Amino acid sequence: MAMLFLSDNAASVHPALWRAMQAADAPDSPYDGDALSQRLDDAFGELFGRECAVLWGATGTAVNCLALATMVPPHGGVVCHREAHIEMDEGGAPGFYLHGAKLLLAEGEGAKLTPRAIAAVIDPIRNDVHQVQPHAVSITQASEYGRAYQPAEIAAIAAFCAERGLPLHVDGARFANAVAFLGCSPWEACKGAAALSFGMIKNGGMSAEALVLFDTGLADVARYRRKRAGHLQSKGRYLAAQLLAMLEDGVWLANARHANAAARELAGAAQDRLLHPVEANEVFLRLTAPEREALRHQGFSFYDWGDEAARLVTAWNSPHEHVGALARAIASL
Amino acid sequence: MAMLFLSDNAASVHPALWRAMQAADAPDSPYDGDALSQRLDDAFGELFGRECAVLWGATGTAVNCLALATMVPPHGGVVCHREAHIEMDEGGAPGFYLHGAKLLLAEGEGAKLTPRAIAAVIDPIRNDVHQVQPHAVSITQASEYGRAYQPAEIAAIAAFCAERGLPLHVDGARFANAVAFLGCSPWEACKGAAALSFGMIKNGGMSAEALVLFDTGLADVARYRRKRAGHLQSKGRYLAAQLLAMLEDGVWLANARHANAAARELAGAAQDRLLHPVEANEVFLRLTAPEREALRHQGFSFYDWGDEAARLVTAWNSPHEHVGALARAIASL
Amino acid sequence: MAMLFLSDNAASVHPALWRAMQAADAPDSPYDGDALSQRLDDAFGELFGRECAVLWGATGTAVNCLALATMVPPHGGVVCHREAHIEMDEGGAPGFYLHGAKLLLAEGEGAKLTPRAIAAVIDPIRNDVHQVQPHAVSITQASEYGRAYQPAEIAAIAAFCAERGLPLHVDGARFANAVAFLGCSPWEACKGAAALSFGMIKNGGMSAEALVLFDTGLADVARYRRKRAGHLQSKGRYLAAQLLAMLEDGVWLANARHANAAARELAGAAQDRLLHPVEANEVFLRLTAPEREALRHQGFSFYDWGDEAARLVTAWNSPHEHVGALARAIASL
Amino acid sequence: MAMLFLSDNAASVHPALWRAMQAADAPDSPYDGDALSQRLDDAFGELFGRECAVLWGATGTAVNCLALATMVPPHGGVVCHREAHIEMDEGGAPGFYLHGAKLLLAEGEGAKLTPRAIAAVIDPIRNDVHQVQPHAVSITQASEYGRAYQPAEIAAIAAFCAERGLPLHVDGARFANAVAFLGCSPWEACKGAAALSFGMIKNGGMSAEALVLFDTGLADVARYRRKRAGHLQSKGRYLAAQLLAMLEDGVWLANARHANAAARELAGAAQDRLLHPVEANEVFLRLTAPEREALRHQGFSFYDWGDEAARLVTAWNSPHEHVGALARAIASL
Repeated sequence: MAMLFLSDNAASVHPALWRAMQAADAPDSPYDGDALSQRLDDAFGELFGRECAVLWGATGTAVNCLALATMVPPHGGVVCHREAHIEMDEGGAPGFYLHGAKLLLAEGEGAKLTPRAIAAVIDPIRNDVHQVQPHAVSITQASEYGRAYQPAEIAAIAAFCAERGLPLHVDGARFANAVAFLGCSPWEACKGAAALSFGMIKNGGMSAEALVLFDTGLADVARYRRKRAGHLQSKGRYLAAQLLAMLEDGVWLANARHANAAARELAGAAQDRLLHPVEANEVFLRLTAPEREALRHQGFSFYDWGDEAARLVTAWNSPHEHVGALARAIASL
Repeated sequence: MAMLFLSDNAASVHPALWRAMQAADAPDSPYDGDALSQRLDDAFGELFGRECAVLWGATGTAVNCLALATMVPPHGGVVCHREAHIEMDEGGAPGFYLHGAKLLLAEGEGAKLTPRAIAAVIDPIRNDVHQVQPHAVSITQASEYGRAYQPAEIAAIAAFCAERGLPLHVDGARFANAVAFLGCSPWEACKGAAALSFGMIKNGGMSAEALVLFDTGLADVARYRRKRAGHLQSKGRYLAAQLLAMLEDGVWLANARHANAAARELAGAAQDRLLHPVEANEVFLRLTAPEREALRHQGFSFYDWGDEAARLVTAWNSPHEHVGALARAIASL
Repeated sequence: MAMLFLSDNAASVHPALWRAMQAADAPDSPYDGDALSQRLDDAFGELFGRECAVLWGATGTAVNCLALATMVPPHGGVVCHREAHIEMDEGGAPGFYLHGAKLLLAEGEGAKLTPRAIAAVIDPIRNDVHQVQPHAVSITQASEYGRAYQPAEIAAIAAFCAERGLPLHVDGARFANAVAFLGCSPWEACKGAAALSFGMIKNGGMSAEALVLFDTGLADVARYRRKRAGHLQSKGRYLAAQLLAMLEDGVWLANARHANAAARELAGAAQDRLLHPVEANEVFLRLTAPEREALRHQGFSFYDWGDEAARLVTAWNSPHEHVGALARAIASL
Repeated sequence: MAMLFLSDNAASVHPALWRAMQAADAPDSPYDGDALSQRLDDAFGELFGRECAVLWGATGTAVNCLALATMVPPHGGVVCHREAHIEMDEGGAPGFYLHGAKLLLAEGEGAKLTPRAIAAVIDPIRNDVHQVQPHAVSITQASEYGRAYQPAEIAAIAAFCAERGLPLHVDGARFANAVAFLGCSPWEACKGAAALSFGMIKNGGMSAEALVLFDTGLADVARYRRKRAGHLQSKGRYLAAQLLAMLEDGVWLANARHANAAARELAGAAQDRLLHPVEANEVFLRLTAPEREALRHQGFSFYDWGDEAARLVTAWNSPHEHVGALARAIASL
């Protein structure tokens, strides 16, 4: 029997979302004119305790890039980490959506940025037309290595960005996991952001991510760009239904807590192997090739991470028995 | 009670598709690596009786533009009808996906093109760098006015395109309706096309259209462009499941026949009011404002079409009683 | 001996410009940091009687597109005439510079627009994301058929644009000819424009057009976009020298007057053949194929204009004897 | 009196070019239809000993980007050095011309690449749609630090590129200086390249660079893209005249030799200060702030290079006395 720790991005859909989609089956206005899509602003506004404009989108890549496209002109640049998803794994989508704008790459431990790291990239840029100027900053909460920004870290970055006139985008593909770890309010986990890509698909969704625009002035352009990118689905109510079901009764948070707990359990069994502190639902472990082979032989699936490590990802529905079995197997290596 | 003839693009999802999606809920490889996505080429290949490469996508706009992006360089042009969906209703998406390539607009009755109409656009184009050169042709089957191209018409266009070295794209947002009307094989309804956007969403789908590449050499670029456009969903199996369920037991064709029959019934009640012959599931009727008001007062919903007409659209599940009621109401005006 | 009436765009360079370029030969700061480039704002500001920011560029296509790129986002549209140069003859450059923004085509006699013609294009555009929204208007002064907008016509268009919130761009490839015809001030010939592409090359220049930004807030973006388009020449002083020499002692106006007078002389000899009133330096004449052949046999070069007409273009230096000879030849047909 | 070592990109125009431009003043066909433009293929073909297609362009940025645009689709990538001009100094022009294609940055001493450095960038790229794939390689001859690739080094890179199916572009902003240093034939200095941006402006030109396409199959696209970028000047004969004058009597090589000799003289006076071997016309010297101040006080102009160094650039016409004076001044520090 396969015990899957490959990725959270292929996990099953949460039952509450199935129910919500089926409840949305009666015809309603097409696109985002339906009653469910119209409720998104309020539902997320309540969650974050502030006004926001919310658009659904089919992928994290799409909502990340739509967010940035509202902030950055084609001749501009976006500061992000050298290992950010938008730089590494989106097939050049930012180049497409931003019409050739440039990613300006910063360094930072655990794929996290700091004001100092951002400054190190932008301060040497002369204010002349020969160099691409920064127009926004994008960070990932939790980061590509499963590291969460503490509220104070977010606040410091947001203050720096405000000072430099750079709107802040948060790629929250695993935002729920970050909030679950931090134990803070959702807003504290991204306070000061102009836009948040609030990931739902890795957390039990099927096909809907939420683009949350705290700077509601960006919504108009985002809507035109979404249509222009072929992302305005005609039966948008099924996407809205997923998002609303996630928020209702805190499904999003419960799912993330489950995944995080599973990751912590794995980490607990492998303290001396950890490449990064485990703060979300990803566990990066030093594991030799024979060790990985041994684990796979016992039925565990996961990705290699370079030659000497592996990445284990837990999901909203990782079975306790699988997690326990893997924890024991690692401890026994 | 509302009786809806607004559009087929907001109709409910067919039960077979719900079942197929739920049957796909167990985790599988992400993106299009899952077993269902891997079956698409064969399933459509069988339907069309020839090899093809098939990609799912979330909207007709996206698959249309991805198809064209495989054929047309940024400095090129696409011949299409002046009232083609790609020109009129996609929010400039072709300009985005094709990086500024140009739509070269042709004339034709019922939003249909002919070799002569295409030649009228491209023959005057001098072969010099000051003018945008044609690189592809796009037609819509059935057309934006619900008109079907007969196999002989398709063949003539395809022959013309081949002679001029222009690959042919077919926007088949209502391809099923066209096939149902024509009574021919699916291939005869688009024979010679390099790519077909095979619409499923208007025909009982939820969120999956099929990009069918008969020129399989286009698939590699289409896949990179799909990712780059943020359209490579991580849980692609739910989209593949929809497409396969559509093909199984001919759901696609049965659905289209139902919608077409409903449209014919409406047309039969309004022969002297028809703006266009009814060959698919759209009925364009001359109706004065008071007449439209009277129909709406009886519970029928539909869009105005200019000041003196209305567009009625039937769906895969338009209830017989609604259709009959509307037919009688029109006849009684 | 060849007597050339093909185009003004290949004419010789005016002696004053040669002198100015050679006077600029001593090294100065590169790009547009040199003393001459720095004088452009003031020199044009004086000519137009108002503050402006001026950038040189190598072609009309480039300055037109740079101007529009400051006004129109990638998802937007530009209203222009169906026969505007930006639509017909720039090889798709607007699609490139504006990242796929759309040209929204209006009708109008003599390739001239009116508020009514603009309204006819934009009023039917629903304010929704499915349709490309207008973001700017571009007119050509003098038009592609050599027609000038009277100051009152310009004022009406500018007022309409202001009311609709659409910045106005003027393609002035033959702006000098229009001013010479109108006898008004340069500003009156484009009053209300946010940007003017002030053509110099057809009027005796070598390689420099002026992008005159009356909305100086557009200059910053225009400068970044110019560099990004590879149009920031390192020895910009030679371009600035051309522009300044044009303005000095009214070379631009004297040249245009010469060309206009030559065109008038031709028109006077062919009143019954004119397709358009002659208001600049282009003469469109009904001429049969044998008539054109006869003229060419006498040594006159010009372009056919369709099957039954010809286009004659005069230049800043069209020799009196050539013009007179052609006038007589036409009269004798 | 100012003694300029700031850059070669603002130097005066060589007298032979002035003469050639003036000799080209009689009208000829516009754009690149004139006799001079038509001679470019042959003239450069003779120089390189092989067939080539040659287009003029106004800037190095433009010809670099046009070259790459013929090789790289919008979803592709170009391998170049981390300090390549296209990455550092072109204001994002590659992102514009290549429609968001990505620069894939490699390391290498002296801003030079090697097969190993290129492999280090591209070998880790998985062949999947999540990552931007390499489609071309661009190197700079001489490099941004004034380092020349030896023929054997070029051959190794070209062989590697051929093996990987990657066309090779050579940015030759200072190609003449490299050839002058290497003492080889022009072809040996770029052997295997599909395209060379042959810089003339830094070497005594006014406004014309040569895009030399050894893969002549790229010419058609390059011509359409040049027009589309607004770089098809109507009086192209003045640009062609510059290029032909450069080739005639070896002006290009004599100019480069002069500049190189001047740089060598400076280097000879500062052996222990050199940051890079001097192989072209750029000299990077360790110089403290007081030392730089002292030199400037004596009338020498140059750019700082970070806090502890300076960049001295010699030109085709650097006066012997200035060079000698600077050499002595440095030696006396």
